Amino acid sequence: MAGLSHPNLRIDGDRLWKSLMASAEIGPGRAGGLRRLALSDADKEMRDLFVRWCEEAGCAVTVDRMGNIFARRAGTDESLPPVLIGSHLDTQIAGGRFDGILGVLAGLEAIRTLDDAGIATRRPIEVVNWSNEEGARFQPPMMSAAVFAGLQPVEWGLARTDADGRRFGDELERIGYAGTAPVGGRPIDAYFELHIEQGPVLDERGIQVGVVDGTYAVRGLNLIVHGETAHTGPTPMAKRKNALVGAAMLIVAANEVGWAHADAGGKSTSSRIEVWPNLAGILPDYAKVTIDFRHPTREGVDQMLADFHTRLLDAVQRSQTRVDIAEGWAFGDERFDPDCIDLVREAAEALGYSHLDMPSQAGHDAYYISRMAPTAMIFCPCERGITHNEAENCTLEQVVPAANVLLHAALARANR
Amino acid sequence: MAGLSHPNLRIDGDRLWKSLMASAEIGPGRAGGLRRLALSDADKEMRDLFVRWCEEAGCAVTVDRMGNIFARRAGTDESLPPVLIGSHLDTQIAGGRFDGILGVLAGLEAIRTLDDAGIATRRPIEVVNWSNEEGARFQPPMMSAAVFAGLQPVEWGLARTDADGRRFGDELERIGYAGTAPVGGRPIDAYFELHIEQGPVLDERGIQVGVVDGTYAVRGLNLIVHGETAHTGPTPMAKRKNALVGAAMLIVAANEVGWAHADAGGKSTSSRIEVWPNLAGILPDYAKVTIDFRHPTREGVDQMLADFHTRLLDAVQRSQTRVDIAEGWAFGDERFDPDCIDLVREAAEALGYSHLDMPSQAGHDAYYISRMAPTAMIFCPCERGITHNEAENCTLEQVVPAANVLLHAALARANR
Repeated sequence: MAGLSHPNLRIDGDRLWKSLMASAEIGPGRAGGLRRLALSDADKEMRDLFVRWCEEAGCAVTVDRMGNIFARRAGTDESLPPVLIGSHLDTQIAGGRFDGILGVLAGLEAIRTLDDAGIATRRPIEVVNWSNEEGARFQPPMMSAAVFAGLQPVEWGLARTDADGRRFGDELERIGYAGTAPVGGRPIDAYFELHIEQGPVLDERGIQVGVVDGTYAVRGLNLIVHGETAHTGPTPMAKRKNALVGAAMLIVAANEVGWAHADAGGKSTSSRIEVWPNLAGILPDYAKVTIDFRHPTREGVDQMLADFHTRLLDAVQRSQTRVDIAEGWAFGDERFDPDCIDLVREAAEALGYSHLDMPSQAGHDAYYISRMAPTAMIFCPCERGITHNEAENCTLEQVVPAANVLLHAALARANR
Repeated sequence: MAGLSHPNLRIDGDRLWKSLMASAEIGPGRAGGLRRLALSDADKEMRDLFVRWCEEAGCAVTVDRMGNIFARRAGTDESLPPVLIGSHLDTQIAGGRFDGILGVLAGLEAIRTLDDAGIATRRPIEVVNWSNEEGARFQPPMMSAAVFAGLQPVEWGLARTDADGRRFGDELERIGYAGTAPVGGRPIDAYFELHIEQGPVLDERGIQVGVVDGTYAVRGLNLIVHGETAHTGPTPMAKRKNALVGAAMLIVAANEVGWAHADAGGKSTSSRIEVWPNLAGILPDYAKVTIDFRHPTREGVDQMLADFHTRLLDAVQRSQTRVDIAEGWAFGDERFDPDCIDLVREAAEALGYSHLDMPSQAGHDAYYISRMAPTAMIFCPCERGITHNEAENCTLEQVVPAANVLLHAALARANR
């Protein structure tokens, strides 16, 4: 990009903020945060509002079979593949007001800005809301983007169930978002996703825009520890096969591996456990734990996994339990597109914003979309990096620069 | 006791076994065990059968406000306090066919045997079924015996709720066992409880009868670990306050304390955990864990508790969490009555059974009753000591000697 095509074009920060705050009223959680689980009544209410806004902006709205919503602003050449911009409107169970939501509403704001300025683009631009990015209600996260990218069949997605056994497909029907459009299977010119950083770097260093140039590699495991029920009283220590003790050893082991690689940016997580029968008087039969490892490099994360496996064998022996790996997953080996990354960096530079090349540590819909289309991400700072917590916060000043970068990067790409 | 008053009197083993196997049909669980949770439909069915059997044996049946059932065989002097024999008919969620049940049905068998032989006793004898000994549905265990012994008010017991929020009192009404008799508050001459050992000692050593001369001391803690929700991805290790990691460290620490005292008979347990929000993408806000320590001596268990507290401080520091002790409890400091213990030992000796003085390691209704009346317990062997597991098993040969000891000890006491 040799300079900006419309150097004075800026989004309307107040209008964007008003949209964000209207969203923040839908599905209020504890302590001022949001609890807007995918396909809940609150999610439906937010989707309805988003669709109304998009239609008011003159977009053609389509919904695909996974409930992904696309609001299309026509290009001057409708035969060209569109530029996609977006993120997700669902939240964690104790989520904040910006995670995901900012990316969708900043996309809408970009379209409103282009409309106000009467700027036509060669390619169509579509704002997208991906269904169930968080994975807080239906596992796994980012599943609708995965289906869109052709990594999983639609039927797999529709058949996912929540903790109460309700099917994703049935819940889409219930809230009126079981669309008819095919999921993916069409060329996409490029995908841009603006997201809060979800880490403290930009906020701490007072940098306005993060140019996401890479991803952390993630490796996850669902483990089942098998013990043996027995009375918690008389059973001697040597005869105990306590599945919860085995699981606790694995959680501690994963935590130690995280610390051992912390200086290089590694981290480990165990945030979920399920024990049966989970009663005070009886040693448990089994415990299921979810553990994951993240590292800036693929080699690093694989070393973490190897370290954990060594400790796992020790934990099994000490707890006299047996461990099955029920499921394993990997993501974050994706690479974003150098041309798209350049567009983001150049827009930030041309707009005079301070910016930093940095990797994304969390998973995002962009990871899967990067498998089918050139993709880049833009980060804005968020207060102390807090996220997946009701205290997640951003100021208007923190979101505007990145939203302008999104506007100009998408505009440049749409005129290619 | 200078010899037995009726040296040739024996229970009818086949009849007792038939009763046990009839019980084993009510509330079948996995793998041939029982799942007869307190105040469930299965518990009601078993109570109805037990009441019918008692009435057929000519007993007067009363039910108190906690649903405890007393089947009374009149004495020749009805002004004297009765001798109580019994245990409980409820089971764990994955329980066996003998735990508790044997003590109640062997009590009934003793009465049937006295009836058959036309033997009158000076004191009345009452067979009792204590409500909800296991604590598997309503916490805490042994609660109805605690109320009977005057350690807790009736209103406390009736207000206990299960995991679905159902009140103990309402569930008693529902199954028709909300009796009108006052709970306790009357003199009891003595209490005898026959129970399976729930440990491997008698079975391994081929000894027929355990003369319970003491109890293990038990100290329990309900702990709440407070963390902070955050994204499982970007949050650096140093900023994580993962409540599940803190809880896992406490569970591992308790396990280490158990092993450190194992040679002296100490043991530790963590069998229950509750985490919120317990999702893969979010570091948990809190984790609740139940931990207990058991030791043959009061000094030993207090040392275990002290050792654990030292490690707790370390776990708090390493996991960057905060831990509250929400509840603590202690039992097993009770002492059984020397005279009643002598009656049990002398009956075993006079009947020619091999016997062993041994402590009880699990909690029993007898612990609380011993606070209000002279009490003793009798153990019979059970296969490999397995209990609170569907594989719990006893043979007819294993239960008959202890049942005969119960009969003769109670008979001797009832004629004092």
